[in-house]
Amino acid sequence: MSDQNTAATKDEFMQAAIDEARMGRAQGGIPIGSVLVRDGQLVSRGRNKRVQENNAIKHGEMDALMNAGRQRTYRDTVLYTTLMPCYMCAGTIVQFKIPKVVVGESRTFGESKEFLESHGVEVVILDLQECVDLMNEFIAAEPTLWNEDIMEL
Amino acid sequence: MSDQNTAATKDEFMQAAIDEARMGRAQGGIPIGSVLVRDGQLVSRGRNKRVQENNAIKHGEMDALMNAGRQRTYRDTVLYTTLMPCYMCAGTIVQFKIPKVVVGESRTFGESKEFLESHGVEVVILDLQECVDLMNEFIAAEPTLWNEDIMEL
Repeated sequence: MSDQNTAATKDEFMQAAIDEARMGRAQGGIPIGSVLVRDGQLVSRGRNKRVQENNAIKHGEMDALMNAGRQRTYRDTVLYTTLMPCYMCAGTIVQFKIPKVVVGESRTFGESKEFLESHGVEVVILDLQECVDLMNEFIAAEPTLWNEDIMEL
Repeated sequence: MSDQNTAATKDEFMQAAIDEARMGRAQGGIPIGSVLVRDGQLVSRGRNKRVQENNAIKHGEMDALMNAGRQRTYRDTVLYTTLMPCYMCAGTIVQFKIPKVVVGESRTFGESKEFLESHGVEVVILDLQECVDLMNEFIAAEPTLWNEDIMEL
């Protein structure tokens, strides 16, 4: 049923972000994925690589932005991400002047919505059960790893 | 005169951050450096690598944190950085729960002090003329590169 409920709101870009999250989990990593989009085209894709690359700053959003290389501007981009951004990623969105973020879900994590909106960023939360399930299954299986990633150890 | 004025407040860690900034400039990059410190010992060093690595997220602070790998906690660390953090780096400091930031200068850039302090981060601004000169010389020589780095193009 949840697939039917979310089908109307999940476009190809959120699907690409979810695909990145699933690939990350298959690699033993944290299942959060992101893509950067401009003019209806993918600019770059990314996924959390804390485990895969021993890298604390490679959240999905940061990996996608790193993979985009140097862009003249981000004012015409949209960032899609499976989970509500943490403050690192939210601060990056504000600094990069990305005007819009589409979020898979904010039930399992995320306190940056007010910060983003106070800096003029449009935040669209799709509340996809698929994304909630992905995180809940991961957090149940790897609670210590998750707490490391959100700095709650 | 400025060297004498600042000698009393510039310790070995800020000197290491300045060394990183100068090495970055010598590489054709943006002269901002940072180091992470725990218990009076260097954990890692970093510098802005936008130019050197075609990497928009590698500000000095982010590079130092990336070079630190996975740390169990950052609650016992201090981040030294030659320039007031941007929102990406400030959001990262908040997310990583780094309790204290020592800043070389905030005259040429920086609007994140209030955000950092509102999240309980202690911000110490040394206001070193050496750091101001480093940035002013760079901005005069490479205004477009600087505006790219702070997303003002």
